[in-house]
Amino acid sequence: MEEKQYLMLPGPTPVPSGVLRALARPMINHRGPEFKALLEEVTDGLKKVFRTQNQVIIFPSAGTGAMEAAVANCVSPGDKVLVVSIGVFGERFAEIARRFGAQVEKLDFAWGTAADPAALAGVIKEDKNQEIKAVFVTHNETSTGVTNDVQGLRAALGDHPALFVVDAVSGLGAMELETDAWNLDVVVAGSQKSFMIPPGLSFLCLSPRAWEAAARCTNSRYYWDVEAARKMAEKGQTPYTPALPQISALAESLKMIEAEGLENIFARHRRLRDMVRQGARALGLELLARDEVASSAVTAILSPAGIGADTIRRVLREKFNVVVAGGQRQLQNKIFRIGHLGYVQDLDVIAALAALEMALACCGYKVELGQGVRAAQSVALAGVGEGGG
Amino acid sequence: MEEKQYLMLPGPTPVPSGVLRALARPMINHRGPEFKALLEEVTDGLKKVFRTQNQVIIFPSAGTGAMEAAVANCVSPGDKVLVVSIGVFGERFAEIARRFGAQVEKLDFAWGTAADPAALAGVIKEDKNQEIKAVFVTHNETSTGVTNDVQGLRAALGDHPALFVVDAVSGLGAMELETDAWNLDVVVAGSQKSFMIPPGLSFLCLSPRAWEAAARCTNSRYYWDVEAARKMAEKGQTPYTPALPQISALAESLKMIEAEGLENIFARHRRLRDMVRQGARALGLELLARDEVASSAVTAILSPAGIGADTIRRVLREKFNVVVAGGQRQLQNKIFRIGHLGYVQDLDVIAALAALEMALACCGYKVELGQGVRAAQSVALAGVGEGGG
Repeated sequence: MEEKQYLMLPGPTPVPSGVLRALARPMINHRGPEFKALLEEVTDGLKKVFRTQNQVIIFPSAGTGAMEAAVANCVSPGDKVLVVSIGVFGERFAEIARRFGAQVEKLDFAWGTAADPAALAGVIKEDKNQEIKAVFVTHNETSTGVTNDVQGLRAALGDHPALFVVDAVSGLGAMELETDAWNLDVVVAGSQKSFMIPPGLSFLCLSPRAWEAAARCTNSRYYWDVEAARKMAEKGQTPYTPALPQISALAESLKMIEAEGLENIFARHRRLRDMVRQGARALGLELLARDEVASSAVTAILSPAGIGADTIRRVLREKFNVVVAGGQRQLQNKIFRIGHLGYVQDLDVIAALAALEMALACCGYKVELGQGVRAAQSVALAGVGEGGG
Repeated sequence: MEEKQYLMLPGPTPVPSGVLRALARPMINHRGPEFKALLEEVTDGLKKVFRTQNQVIIFPSAGTGAMEAAVANCVSPGDKVLVVSIGVFGERFAEIARRFGAQVEKLDFAWGTAADPAALAGVIKEDKNQEIKAVFVTHNETSTGVTNDVQGLRAALGDHPALFVVDAVSGLGAMELETDAWNLDVVVAGSQKSFMIPPGLSFLCLSPRAWEAAARCTNSRYYWDVEAARKMAEKGQTPYTPALPQISALAESLKMIEAEGLENIFARHRRLRDMVRQGARALGLELLARDEVASSAVTAILSPAGIGADTIRRVLREKFNVVVAGGQRQLQNKIFRIGHLGYVQDLDVIAALAALEMALACCGYKVELGQGVRAAQSVALAGVGEGGG
């Protein structure tokens, strides 16, 4: 039969049918009144998810585009910046900053662990001349399945004037992030994660301090020019042609997000996380991240001794139509990552765990069929009382 | 979140995304060359599934429409007919025949059992004056999850001249049925079952003997007039406006059916049946049909003592978004029926069983979570070697 996949990636995530249908709407004039209304609608909806009063800019780009926009608008060549890195996406922010001429200082933590706010406070304390112009942190590190304590990291900055820049691409909308209440200067997000729409859009939100920095920033930019985007937004337009299908889809998905409610969405993601973790543990598998820092969006599982993670992934895909992510860089073939964010419900995770059990059995790993499922069911049943399912 | 259902009904069944997209094609002139090509394409594809060289007629109707067409074209008022009934859809054929003036004789078998060819042979033997003009049988009785031995029943007729009419609405394409090789005179099917398209079309296939009977038949008919349909089909048209979206969808689904191959499709359905049955048994549940006559399309499961089947169904739907069918007539609230035909794969059945376990637990039934899943996984794993999944 035609491929019928259980897409369990940390993005792109499954897209609801109503959102897929919105992709196929007829084209409209992106300089006309229909687009103006659409842009205002989705911008208002995005602000609610970002928990901000600030403007949110929409780029036709991958999430990495908004990361680049954050750097190109807020960091000038020669600026010293501090990148707090706990994995691949922390490294990416550092690399982008280097390419744009910044002096990059790194604060690294072992992959699979979270950043320690006290360590950040220590580095900040050392910066007596306030040379650090920006601190970059990752909200949810997709490569390891670890969520940072963004609020605590921001607090560690104290009243140091550096901009606080957050890559929230894979976490925003799946777990708590308070742009305004936590005093975050720049927040970056992407479309193909908890927003339940296909890849193709990135979102960028700047605080008043970040807007001031952008006005002073000397880095080259045209595509990523936030000031141009802000001015055009006043007219209900974008500086260049927007990705219309994804924006139509976003209007639909934002309605679904509003209907479910952010708190309920966060609770669902926590439950899905716990189902995956309890299920994996019941199979004797080891998890990369500790419970305290475990992501609600994606879970990294170590492959058992003697079995490559990529072999498990291949069997999952070829035999059971379940698609999970692999490990990156030093974690390649050592972990596989089950995404459980966006348009995912309890039974999807249970089916994926059942497939994992069968795939492990195919790979010669001793597994008692049904035991991972059983553990996940127990978590799901506990959630039924609180409106889960 | 938006309803994300596991639709486990014996129709309508889930529809593949490519087929759903075909529903949305622009309208075409049903008297133009595009429709002519489309009608020829789907008719050829249907013949392969019916395993026939006969013409297959497509009605814009429910499956019941083609049942009525079978009667209206092949049975005249006053004709004696024999209806072999093993459930609701056998009863329906009898009722349609009565409404069209036939003298209906019944050969009934207990619901949950199959028709006995020897019993049919006995009735036929008694009909020394060959008064019976048609024998009606059900291929797959949707209400009980029982599949009849259609080949054996046809053989029981011997050289008695009665037309042999088969309601194959829920079975054709999911399990063996050989229209020509088994010498079946009339075969009726519907779109929303193994054809993986939405409801809205029925299919009717007549043998040369059935066409002759139709030419002599005195019953009133306009909509169901097969001769009008045959004549118009020669021009690549239909007597009245066809249901264009479903016909476009059918063209897509027939390609998928051809790509998977009928034998592989039958094997998949048998595996899904065995998964459901082994899973249910592992939970201590009783099955309505014996293994020997168990349908590959739908399985009827008795609800445990003290728990109404409709309560289980409600919990499945409300708490876990799994939709299964209930019992009809005397089986109401006593059984629930899990459909496993059409666009369904192993993990869908496993997820439904996991949900059933949780729903039973919610209803106070003592269930060891994961045990039904485990039994189904064992069946699925055995099927992996033969290309399952």
